[in-house]
Order: sequence, then C-alpha cells, then structure tokens
Amino acid sequence: MLIRPARPEDAAAIWRVIGPTIRAGETYTLDPQMREADALAYWLGPDKETFVAEEEDGAIVGTYFMRANQAGGGAHVCNCGYMTSAAATGRGIARLMCQHSLDHARARGYRAMQFNFVVSTNERAVRLWESLGFKIVGRLPLAFKHPTRGYVDALVMFQSL
Amino acid sequence: MLIRPARPEDAAAIWRVIGPTIRAGETYTLDPQMREADALAYWLGPDKETFVAEEEDGAIVGTYFMRANQAGGGAHVCNCGYMTSAAATGRGIARLMCQHSLDHARARGYRAMQFNFVVSTNERAVRLWESLGFKIVGRLPLAFKHPTRGYVDALVMFQSL
Repeated sequence: MLIRPARPEDAAAIWRVIGPTIRAGETYTLDPQMREADALAYWLGPDKETFVAEEEDGAIVGTYFMRANQAGGGAHVCNCGYMTSAAATGRGIARLMCQHSLDHARARGYRAMQFNFVVSTNERAVRLWESLGFKIVGRLPLAFKHPTRGYVDALVMFQSL
Repeated sequence: MLIRPARPEDAAAIWRVIGPTIRAGETYTLDPQMREADALAYWLGPDKETFVAEEEDGAIVGTYFMRANQAGGGAHVCNCGYMTSAAATGRGIARLMCQHSLDHARARGYRAMQFNFVVSTNERAVRLWESLGFKIVGRLPLAFKHPTRGYVDALVMFQSL
C-alpha cells in the first residue's frame, strides 16, 4: 500500500471512495446530497493537503486530508478526515492512513491533531482512533442526526504530537 | 439598545468593532493580520446571519453572527460569534446579544448552540456563557497560542435549546 499526495487525475477515483460515504450520511457532517463537484472541491480544497492510499495495481482504496483546524492562535493544531472505500473496509487502511497523517503532521510542525466531530455510533472509528493515541476530550450531546438512529452524540477527539 | 440584522452600509462600523479584537488575537482563531476586507467577508459571509447592536444615537457597539455549525446531520446545531467594541465593554452588550441569539436560534428551529473554541483565559466570556446556560462539554489542551500567555486550553461550550 502506497500513501501519496493526491493528484488532479485522481479525482474520479477519490469520488468513488468518498461518494458512497457522503451519500450514506452516517459519519460525516456533509450534505448527503452534495454534488460530486462540490464534494471534490471540499476534499481537495486549497486549505487542505490530500492523500490517497493506492494499492500495487493502482487502485485507490482510501483518501485523507489534513488542514489547520483553526487560523490565528489555533493554527498549530491540525484536523484530518479519512475515508476508505466500502469494498476495502476491514483491511487496516484507515489505520495506515492515520499513522501516515500523524507522521506527516509532526513533519509539518503541528503540535496536535483534533477530530471535531466523530459520530458516537461510529464505534469502530472511535476504537481505532483511541488505539492510535487519541483521547475523547469532548462530547456534544445529540449533535448528529443519524439517518436511521436519530439524534446521537458526537465526540471531540484530540492527540498532542 | 436595538439588535437588528446587519446591513451592507454597516460594514465600516462593524470593522471598528471587530478590527481591534481580531488584531489583538487573544480570543478568536482568526489571523490577527487578516485584511479588513477578508474579515468583513468572513463576518458577513453568505453562510451567516449577522446582527449589530445599535445605540439610540445610531452608534454600533457590538455585532454577532449565527450559522449552522455543521452541514448534513449536524445542521440542527448553530454556532455564533460575538464581539463588542472595546469602548463599550462591561455594559452587558455581549449578554444582550447572546440572549438575542438564543431567541433567534429557537425561532430558526435550531436544537442547540455550540461554541467551538472559547479561549480558556477569556474568563469573563466563560462566566457569561455559563450564566446564560452553556456547559463546558470539552477541553482542548493547549489548543490556543495566546500572544502573551503562550499555549492555553480552549473550551467547547454547548447548550440545548
């Protein structure tokens, strides 16, 4: 598995990864109906560094972005978002991407990484982030309307680097 | 004191309120050096409803914005930012604006209000928000680089409506 910076020609492959997750609306606070062009403009925006996880045969099975979580006095804390293709779930790709991002964040000089909104029902993600050193530092009561479970809590997770 | 929607012709007066706070860099995660035009584009952005607090003589002494804090499944929680002119500090204008915003948020159908990043050294603000019903639901360790106090915690504050 190669994790490398995304290139403009990866856009269609990135959409095949992020589209189904956005459309499902269960884990990200993005409009489930957002247009492909808007989703790609967001994921590959100029405020972000975006990476892809590429298999040996060239297939893109995951992608993540990194950005400063705040401007000004908060710019030393980064934020990332990760998505793995549904077909590749369970193979440790999110873990690899997160480990890559932690290394990259340290190299960039960030002092911490923050996830602003981890949906509490996304239990596998919560466990994964905890296993990679993140702590739950906040709980937002009923802050996410899950498409099938109704209003559920969201978590703020944080790790000093 | 009248709290009313901001109009385009209020821009210069709004800058006189928000400019010194942005330049000080002690309470908001905005670039202290940001240009006036960029600051106004942010404060009056199309994703926000912006209000001003106007005295009887027409002087604008405070301003706040409201927006959805997240898209998609998080869009039922709003976020606000408030600034009072330095000359008018201590007169209860922030309290009035926050009370106005809580009423407005309920009228808009929001189910909660969240402050993502209250700098912990801004003790007067923390006490004020607590007195208005907000709870500290998260603490971001050393997430803000204060211009004179160094790295300090930031708080996530939340209130169901």
